[in-house]
Amino acid sequence: MPVGTQASVKAVSPEDLTETGVQVILANTYHLYLRPGHPVIRRLGGLHRFMNWPGPILTDSGGFQVYSLTPLRSLTESGVTFRSHIDGSQHFIGPEEAVEIQEALGADIIMAFDECAPYPCDYDYVERSVRLTTSWAERSLDRKQREDQCLFGIVQGGMYRDLREKSARELVAMGFEGYALGGLSVGEDADTRRRVIQEVIPFLPADKPVYLMGVGTPEDIVEAVTLGVDMFDCVMPTRNARNGTLFTSTGKMSIKNARYAEDDRPIDETCDCYTCTRYSRAYLRHLFMAKEILVYRLNTIHNLAYYTRLMTQLRDAIREDRLTEYRTTFYKRRASPQA
Amino acid sequence: MPVGTQASVKAVSPEDLTETGVQVILANTYHLYLRPGHPVIRRLGGLHRFMNWPGPILTDSGGFQVYSLTPLRSLTESGVTFRSHIDGSQHFIGPEEAVEIQEALGADIIMAFDECAPYPCDYDYVERSVRLTTSWAERSLDRKQREDQCLFGIVQGGMYRDLREKSARELVAMGFEGYALGGLSVGEDADTRRRVIQEVIPFLPADKPVYLMGVGTPEDIVEAVTLGVDMFDCVMPTRNARNGTLFTSTGKMSIKNARYAEDDRPIDETCDCYTCTRYSRAYLRHLFMAKEILVYRLNTIHNLAYYTRLMTQLRDAIREDRLTEYRTTFYKRRASPQA
Repeated sequence: MPVGTQASVKAVSPEDLTETGVQVILANTYHLYLRPGHPVIRRLGGLHRFMNWPGPILTDSGGFQVYSLTPLRSLTESGVTFRSHIDGSQHFIGPEEAVEIQEALGADIIMAFDECAPYPCDYDYVERSVRLTTSWAERSLDRKQREDQCLFGIVQGGMYRDLREKSARELVAMGFEGYALGGLSVGEDADTRRRVIQEVIPFLPADKPVYLMGVGTPEDIVEAVTLGVDMFDCVMPTRNARNGTLFTSTGKMSIKNARYAEDDRPIDETCDCYTCTRYSRAYLRHLFMAKEILVYRLNTIHNLAYYTRLMTQLRDAIREDRLTEYRTTFYKRRASPQA
Repeated sequence: MPVGTQASVKAVSPEDLTETGVQVILANTYHLYLRPGHPVIRRLGGLHRFMNWPGPILTDSGGFQVYSLTPLRSLTESGVTFRSHIDGSQHFIGPEEAVEIQEALGADIIMAFDECAPYPCDYDYVERSVRLTTSWAERSLDRKQREDQCLFGIVQGGMYRDLREKSARELVAMGFEGYALGGLSVGEDADTRRRVIQEVIPFLPADKPVYLMGVGTPEDIVEAVTLGVDMFDCVMPTRNARNGTLFTSTGKMSIKNARYAEDDRPIDETCDCYTCTRYSRAYLRHLFMAKEILVYRLNTIHNLAYYTRLMTQLRDAIREDRLTEYRTTFYKRRASPQA
């Protein structure tokens, strides 16, 4: 899921998303709550109509942004009081408010409000955090009214095996329509992340989607899919695109590099995206150096096409029972010298 | 002609240009000479291939940017020595260099190198400037080699009737494929501009295109077409779009205005552009306030559609011999209260 923070996947149109094979997008509840406000979006017919994206949308609960972006927050059993990062105004969001806001926004998948413990974090804090997250998950379910939206619970528990298991068991007992792994990709190393995913997945139902939040690099995704994860969101393809970093079948490239100044080839000769079938590295580099707005769209289209192709290939490999082989080839290709 | 300063009409793709009815675009020789350099563009197959725009392109001579953007320039009979506004490096462009650069870029219409006198400017200076422009026009013609490019001469002469006439007669005697009116829209009032255009047009051949450089507002265009001008270039539709100013059949609107915060209507209910058929004022305002890149493209598409529609209507009115009537209706519509 590409990230459409403020009801727009940065630099691209809904048609661009469809053309690159994007199936679901994510929008941030925190940002839309502050601007333009969920009542405005509800009155204008909901998020799909507002942004002219007919496909599925997932909204997060707002929790992660409240913890990571806002100053002067205070956390109680009821929820979180925080100040807007835009104008400093004071706000409160608890599990009930998070559901109400997300029902007003009208996404297809909405998320229960959770507490994402910092990293690193001692056992006692994480234990309290899991207790709060379970209680908030229950209150989120209770408040949910719309029947045309799926509600996912978020498994917390930091890097502690028993707390992850506890969190997963408690949420599964409530019967959510999908389960997210929260509190990962927060600074821990890849081995730790891998271990946590591996330990918690057995406690989640095999017939419900498992969503790893805020991940990640192509390598992270290949690893997590191998462990059983189904869904991801990350700003990586879009943000990297705007910084001039492009994903290719053989690794990353920086379009700023002077070696591309007269390179007439596309970003990736194996890519059939709009950008690769029409523009040279030389032109993209020129646009990037000249700060021409068009390059942000062209780069984003390419990176999204790369990510959706990766996911398609992973799905095909699972379906054809050759995921291990795919993973080996994936790493081999990246070890070969870059064009 | 929308302006594609650095081989990109800011914020839009070639397909967007085609879809909005754009027929010709302008690219700036000065900018492309400095970055990425005309030899690079020539080696990559020329401007059309470089930027993936198959339609006609006009390049200016570079003169105007040299006079308006660069510090420390010195002007002689040979040409102009100036410093790059990007890195301060020293360069020289004279009429021969301007033609050579434009032949390397490979546009369909190229412009003779001219001297654009400042405004206001005394008679003696403008007289010398016309003499130089005529001499440079001759040298531009002499240097031209490619037969697949049209060369236009640029009429100078400031606000002086006899100097405009002199400049026009001298250029027409050389036989260019089109004639531009330079040195207008440089600070003079609309009445003066109107007078100058009216005075000079009779000295230009009726069967060659007349191109008013750097103009202008919809009103400027309607006035100039009424006086016999055929072609225009201006950053107005694209630059205004990026500043949130949109052109409509009843006048201009600023999408930033709080009155549009919940306005579900398109920018202009009479417009059939991509933006107006898909997005509300409320969404565009939200994107603009949130500084979302997508809005620059959506606004630009609308403003370009407005301008190309204006030109289509003017052509139709000329063809059907009702230009005066069209002009009256044009002003009446704008006097009516805005939506």
